Formats: sequence, structure tokens, C-alpha cells
Amino acid sequence: MNGRESLPLPDVQSSGDPRQIAIDRVGVRGLRHPLLIATPGGPLATVAHIDMTVALPADRKGTHMSRFVEVLQTVHEPLSGAGLRDLLAHTVRTLDAREGSIEIRFPYFITKYAPVSGVPGLLDYDVILLATLSRDVLTVRQKVIVPVTSLCPCSKKVSDYGAHNQRSHVTIEIVAREDVSIEEQVRYAEDAASCELYSVLKRPDEKEVTERAYDNPKFVEDMVRDVAIALRADRRIISFRVESENFESIHNHSAYAVIEQGPRG
Amino acid sequence: MNGRESLPLPDVQSSGDPRQIAIDRVGVRGLRHPLLIATPGGPLATVAHIDMTVALPADRKGTHMSRFVEVLQTVHEPLSGAGLRDLLAHTVRTLDAREGSIEIRFPYFITKYAPVSGVPGLLDYDVILLATLSRDVLTVRQKVIVPVTSLCPCSKKVSDYGAHNQRSHVTIEIVAREDVSIEEQVRYAEDAASCELYSVLKRPDEKEVTERAYDNPKFVEDMVRDVAIALRADRRIISFRVESENFESIHNHSAYAVIEQGPRG
Amino acid sequence: MNGRESLPLPDVQSSGDPRQIAIDRVGVRGLRHPLLIATPGGPLATVAHIDMTVALPADRKGTHMSRFVEVLQTVHEPLSGAGLRDLLAHTVRTLDAREGSIEIRFPYFITKYAPVSGVPGLLDYDVILLATLSRDVLTVRQKVIVPVTSLCPCSKKVSDYGAHNQRSHVTIEIVAREDVSIEEQVRYAEDAASCELYSVLKRPDEKEVTERAYDNPKFVEDMVRDVAIALRADRRIISFRVESENFESIHNHSAYAVIEQGPRG
Amino acid sequence: MNGRESLPLPDVQSSGDPRQIAIDRVGVRGLRHPLLIATPGGPLATVAHIDMTVALPADRKGTHMSRFVEVLQTVHEPLSGAGLRDLLAHTVRTLDAREGSIEIRFPYFITKYAPVSGVPGLLDYDVILLATLSRDVLTVRQKVIVPVTSLCPCSKKVSDYGAHNQRSHVTIEIVAREDVSIEEQVRYAEDAASCELYSVLKRPDEKEVTERAYDNPKFVEDMVRDVAIALRADRRIISFRVESENFESIHNHSAYAVIEQGPRG
Repeated sequence: MNGRESLPLPDVQSSGDPRQIAIDRVGVRGLRHPLLIATPGGPLATVAHIDMTVALPADRKGTHMSRFVEVLQTVHEPLSGAGLRDLLAHTVRTLDAREGSIEIRFPYFITKYAPVSGVPGLLDYDVILLATLSRDVLTVRQKVIVPVTSLCPCSKKVSDYGAHNQRSHVTIEIVAREDVSIEEQVRYAEDAASCELYSVLKRPDEKEVTERAYDNPKFVEDMVRDVAIALRADRRIISFRVESENFESIHNHSAYAVIEQGPRG
Repeated sequence: MNGRESLPLPDVQSSGDPRQIAIDRVGVRGLRHPLLIATPGGPLATVAHIDMTVALPADRKGTHMSRFVEVLQTVHEPLSGAGLRDLLAHTVRTLDAREGSIEIRFPYFITKYAPVSGVPGLLDYDVILLATLSRDVLTVRQKVIVPVTSLCPCSKKVSDYGAHNQRSHVTIEIVAREDVSIEEQVRYAEDAASCELYSVLKRPDEKEVTERAYDNPKFVEDMVRDVAIALRADRRIISFRVESENFESIHNHSAYAVIEQGPRG
Repeated sequence: MNGRESLPLPDVQSSGDPRQIAIDRVGVRGLRHPLLIATPGGPLATVAHIDMTVALPADRKGTHMSRFVEVLQTVHEPLSGAGLRDLLAHTVRTLDAREGSIEIRFPYFITKYAPVSGVPGLLDYDVILLATLSRDVLTVRQKVIVPVTSLCPCSKKVSDYGAHNQRSHVTIEIVAREDVSIEEQVRYAEDAASCELYSVLKRPDEKEVTERAYDNPKFVEDMVRDVAIALRADRRIISFRVESENFESIHNHSAYAVIEQGPRG
Repeated sequence: MNGRESLPLPDVQSSGDPRQIAIDRVGVRGLRHPLLIATPGGPLATVAHIDMTVALPADRKGTHMSRFVEVLQTVHEPLSGAGLRDLLAHTVRTLDAREGSIEIRFPYFITKYAPVSGVPGLLDYDVILLATLSRDVLTVRQKVIVPVTSLCPCSKKVSDYGAHNQRSHVTIEIVAREDVSIEEQVRYAEDAASCELYSVLKRPDEKEVTERAYDNPKFVEDMVRDVAIALRADRRIISFRVESENFESIHNHSAYAVIEQGPRG
């Protein structure tokens, strides 16, 4: 016997609302959920933080929060761009809404090989997918936060030896007309840095990344500009936002830059 | 003897840049700095996290990061809305830029009196001020995160006794044509909640806030709608965004709602 | 051709150290790594944050950081208590050390069924495993952070109706002479709370958890005491520490209590 | 008319408890409060996070949470070591307890002058004071987290030019028989690093700190050893714990080391 049928409990949320104010987005936030992500090399198991919302019309008192979690639990296939679109459509339909959005944040892993020794190791990246259905248009934003090394051109130039360098986060958010893999997006950031990161480096590798960074000094401005040039040349990408935050090794604050580009004419 | 004069070191940042890509914002991020805030009751001492950026033209290689920190250290008066505007103008001028922004995040304190016993106590709120100069227009956004109690109308209605309640964050961001005090902005949030918070409550106070919350159940939707009604009625406010996040006592995730309203016609 | 052989690079870490000061622990911290956890229902895929350290003798200049990451990457079986012990032994051996420790922090998921409707949903818990090898004794601490509902007995008693309640974190850390499953450890915390949490609750479920919490008021002191009683009765458990933090719905701070019990005589 | 007198509300906390389990610590956690700190240069205004707890005997059901906040609000003088001792004694007395502890965490600021240009700037440090009264002994632990630059000796040695460097946190916790100023404690950490940090650096300063770090390579092991040597030589210090975490610029994880030394014989 199902509790919902046996107990005719009042449904407060479904009652009318006299205030006549539509709500842009309402739903659940900060759900932590295990997830499989579809990748070129097969499904990747990760753990996501998920927000799911819909628009609520002016005449409805509340949404039904439990349905979001129920919809989420119908996901069994490894998540792809198409799967995320379906999940949002399913959510909006189940909540009897016209608009909505889903944001999924998770760590992603790529096997990288140390540049000289070839020793493999996993590197972790933060990925954020934001799917939005608004005015009948479904848009997916794919954001990747890529940790890299930056080495300061000014420090190198003014110093007789050495140059300060540090870990930086290059963040690339794109809207694309066709799938761009997370690997490709990460590559854009790593190619624009003084050097990319690895999780395992033996001594010859450490020599290699040290010298490569020194040979390749980049301001925070240089990194966002070089990423911007690459993204502009990729015809699949409709619009983008690229940021870099350098956790300065000589200060207790960051250097930061951002370039944003709207849809091309 | 001043180092800058004695050493004619190369100025890499001031050199030209062949890529011809303007940078929307570049500067420093996450500076932690003690600050006096001007309040109706006199200066309030707090500690802020500060981001300062300017726009960089396409033909310039880099900005001068140290100047941001130097400008910040010229602030000696308690910070007001007018003071923030001046600081941004000063920053943009010093960095030889046309556009820029300053974001200042800090805890703010208001003395509240327990509702029955009258015992005083400080309550803490997070405040974020964002001043932006863009296309010759200087805009200040004032955002306040107000912790409150919310009590679920559905839980109250369906249960024979009791009702789940929890701490919620009501976040109000406004752009106004004249100064709206942080106290007023906090009040809008507290008035829309099931009950406001206090730092000291004696037993008669605890009875009062418990019964007040039970008498005043509010969904996350109700709180953002009630704040929206109040903000619409305040003719000083040009545009706003109101969010509520309820850290549900019956779930391990939050309920969330947002209403955004652009400038009135 | 292997880079390490072709390049006879100096090994600074292996050189002697004149200061004659032993280092208690040295290693890597904050590695993020996908991990399978052995559970009663089969392997659970999660993402862990991992710290790995060893003791360093007074006469050695440095440890070999890359080896920690290499050891970690040899883990292919779902991690169990025995597996963690092996991993620590492997680490200490590889680093040529006598002592060491491994800390692994990860979200864990348990399927829970809503109490009336029976709708299933995953609930997330934070788990921390700390294995330490010190003076030839290998100890594993298993810590679980369990989110629950607490309802205030004082608020219920003094009020004519209602009672403030909130989300709380009950944290239980144990050292046991034989395996205690994470499920059992979570159950100790949930049984001591005013009510346990679920990720999906339909209306009849919400009625049930609301009334159950009201029928079962608990101070932060009550929750740690009730857990302590249960842990003392479990003969497998050698020592424990139980904490509760209540994120008060009527304040902007927490109530907190802790009971610690050393090894039984 | 005072609510407490007019309403003879039941005092649940003061009732007996049949479980007969003493509670090690119970109180409030995460109070955010503005605070003046006594410093050599006069009072410093900051904002603290504060935990306050007492021991609760086996026969008492609960503590009185509101009294902690009331005691905290009696602090008006700039906080010193003596003041913290008094505050703990006051708390324990007010809560009718035998033991207790107070932890205060706050950002601290020191004016530093750029090494060549002499330009002043504030640098921020995290400080944690923990006062504990246990078995009639009152102990104060003073902990300072000092951000510094570390430059890798191995990277310098194996590379033809350059060396990776990064921001590190050196954490020193001491128990002392007489006051050790925060400035002195910070100095121990900064002297053991490859280079200290500044908030403002002009180009000649940047040359100086770059070359100084390169001239002064330090492993995470070297930094904790060099701090340990200095602390051992300071006869005021009874016991200490020194940690270093290097946020590696070539990895996405940290290198970490710790040395702990108990009271001298």
C-alpha cells in the first residue's frame, strides 16, 4: 500500500498564490551524487555537486522539491552532452515547468605521462556543466578549471637569475555548436601556460618542466590572450569566457585576468 | 636612495603587445585588508577581501599590479558609498585605464536585542560591495547575505504537531539611485523570514522565536516573493536580485529560489 | 630508453643532512584521486582526497615525493581495511621508512528508503580513514560525519507549540579490534539523533519525520551521550571520539559537544 | 520588566541526567565577532571566529549556551595573553564548570617594507589562540600560519636554469612560559623560508626577492628543520609543532612536513 494514496494529505505547494510574482528559478541545491561521465576512453566514475531548478509561474505557491531528486535518480547511463540535455528536458517536464536549469560540478581525471620518463599519473580538473532552458532555447555551458604553472616575464627579465613562478588556475567556459571534449578544452589552457602540471615527475622530468617554464614566461594577461586566440580559431565555439588566477609565490594575493567574448556576428 | 631611480630596470608590462586583444579586466584578487566601514552608528572595524581590476587596451602588454595595492593603502576614511566611488575612480586613473571594478567582501555586525529579555548581542552578516566603471557609467551593487530561520508550511500543514525549520540564507543584491543602508537591506530579509536570528536568547526569548516561526511558516518561494514585493515598493531601488537558500533540516541538501528584476521602465 | 638512466642527475634528497633533526612526517597532501571502496553491497566508486607521509631519519636530507603518487597508483582493488593496511605497509617500504601514515577522505553513499512511501534515495556521508604505523604498531581510525536532524528539548518544553530544529553533524571516530562497517557506524549516529535524514521525502514521509523529531527532542549533549552509550556496548570498539555540531536554526553559530574515550583497561 | 522573572519557564538544562556520562567539552562554535588585539604597536582591529566550551559533569543534563555569548560580550579591552586567560577563567566560572577551553582564530596584519624601494604594505597572517583549562592547569597555544616563498633545491640543482618555486604555508604552534609576540613567531617562519612575502613590490624589489629565493633553495623538510632549530634555541618556548605545506607549482597537490616537540625534560 502506497503512503501517498492512503493519506489524503493537503498539497500546500499546488495551491494558488495571490502575490502574482513569478519566480525565475526554484529547486534543489548542493545535492552530492555519484555520477558516470562519458569520456573518449569510456565511462569515468566521479562524484558531483548538483543544482536543479525550474521557473515557477506567478499563480503557483510552490514547486515539488522531491521530484528533482527522483528525476536525478533515473540517470543510469554515463552522462554526455546529449544526456544532460535530456535530463534537463525530463526535469522541466516532471516539474510541469517551461524553463529550468541544471548545474553539475565534478572532478575529472586525465592520465598524463611525465614528459621525459613517461611515468603515468592521473591529473584532476574541476568541471562545471550548466544546462539552461530559457525561452525554448536549450544552452549548455562547459567550464573547465585547469591548474598550470605560470612564470613571471618581468621577474625573469629584471633578475640576474631565477624567476618567480606559481600554480595558476586557467578557467575556460564555452558555449559550442557541437561537442568539444573536456580533453580538448583542458589542452587549450595547458598550451597557453608556462608549463602544464603532472602528478608524477621523476628528476629528469623535473628538469624538463623547470626549464620549459623558464623558457616560456607568461603574465596572467598573456595566458588569457593566448587562450582567446585559440578559442577564436575553433569554429565550433560560439562564445567563451577565459580567466586566469595566479596564486603569486611572492605575494599573499592573486593576479587575475579575464576575457569574455559573446556570440560571433 | 630610491631603488626605482637607481636601477633602470626594463618595464616589460609597458611594452606593446602584438596580439591586439583587449583584456576585459586585469588586476589583483583576494587581498585581505582591515577596513573601517561608515555606518549610521559610526565607523565599524572589519576585515575585507578585495578584488581590484581595470580594463587593459589591446596594445598594452600588462598592467602594473603593485599600484592596485598602493591605491588601496591610501584609504584612511571609513568607507562609504561615495568613498567606494572615489576609490574606483582613483584606481582607474592610477592604472591609466578607462574602465575597472572593485569588489569588497566583509563581515558586518548589527547589535540586536533579544525579543523578550532585551539582552543585546552582535549578529554578523556578509556584505559584498561591487563598484563597476564601464562605458563611463559607475554602478554600485550592494549585496547582503542574511541568515534567518525558515519554517516549512507543508511540514506544518501535514503534521499533527511540530514543523521542520532550519537556518536559511536570504541574499539581497540591489542597485539603488540613492544610499540604502545595510541595516535597511538586512531588515527586508529578516521581515520576510519565518523568524530573524539573535546571538543571545534567554528562555523567554527562545519561547518567543519558536512560536513566532511556527506562526509564520514560509517556503523558500515565499521568502523571495515577500522580499521582492518590499523591494519593488522602495522607489530608491533601481534593480535587484533576491535569493534564498534553506539548509533543510530534513535533507542533506538545500532548497533554493531566486527572483531577479532588471531596471524599471 | 629511460630518462632516469640516461641522465645521471644529482639526487639532492638522498644526500646527508648535518642538522641532525628527525622529521615526524613528510610527504604529499591533498592528492585528489578516484577510488573504489569495498562495501557490503559491492564496490562503491568515489573520489578521495589523500595525504601520505613517512618519518624521515635525522641523517637524510629529503624524501622522494614522486614515489608516494606511484604507490597510490598501484591500488586497483576496492579499498578495504586490510587493503589500507597493505597500502601503508607498501608506502613505508617504498620510501625506505620505519613509520608513516595515510589519510583518505571521501564521500560515501547509502541507499535509504523514505519511511512511509518507501521511495529510495542516496544519502551522502563524509568518511575519513587514517592509518598510522608508529613504533611498529599499525592503527586505523575510521571517522564518519553523519548529517542528522536535532530538535531542541528546551525550545519544545518552553513553547506552547513548535520547537526549533536544524541540521546537525554527528561525527564518530573509532579504533576497533575488528572491522566495523561504515553502515553500522552511521547507524549509531542516526539512532541517537532526533531524526535521520533522507534525500527523497514525499508528503506522508515529511509528516513522519516531522512528528518523529518532535517526539524525540535531543540536545547536542544528549546526542553525544547516546552515541557514547552505544559505542561502549560494542565490544569491537577499542576507543572512540564522538562530536555533535548543531547548526542552530535560531542563531548564526553552532552548539557543539564532544566525548572522547581512550582504550579500555 | 524582565522576561526571565515574569515567566517561570522550566529550565531543562539544569535537570539531572540519568545516563551518568560526563561530557568533555560542550559549548558554542563558530561565533564571528569583532575583536581588538593588543600588539606592540597598539590595538589591532580584526574579526575573529570563536569557539567556547566547558566540561559538563555526569549528573547535569545540559549547559547554558547563551551565557557563553554573554561572557564574550564583556570583552572590551584589547585582547592579550593575560586577557585570554581571564576570559577563560570568567567563562568557566559563569558556566559553573571546572574545565573549559576557548579558541580564537583571526587574521593579523603586519606592516612590511619592500626590501629595496621601502614601500610599505600590510601582510596578512592567520593566528589561532587556544586556551585550555584542564586539571587546574591553564595552557595557551599560540599558532601562526605564515605564507612564504619556497624554492626547490632539487629543481635548481638538476636544471640548467630556473627552479620551480611556490607559495607555502609555514605553521608554527607554541606553548611558552612567557609571552612570545606574534611578530617574533612570524619572523621564525619567514627566516626559514626561501624568501618572505610582501604585499607591494616594485621592480627592483621583485629582482631582489627573485634572486634571494634562488640563492636560498629550501625543501619542505629544510623549512621545518630550520624553524625547529630556532625554536629549540628560544628558552621561552616549552613545546612546539612546526608544519610546512608547499602548494607545488609543478603539481596539483602539496608537499608537506611536520616536526613536533613535547615539553623539554
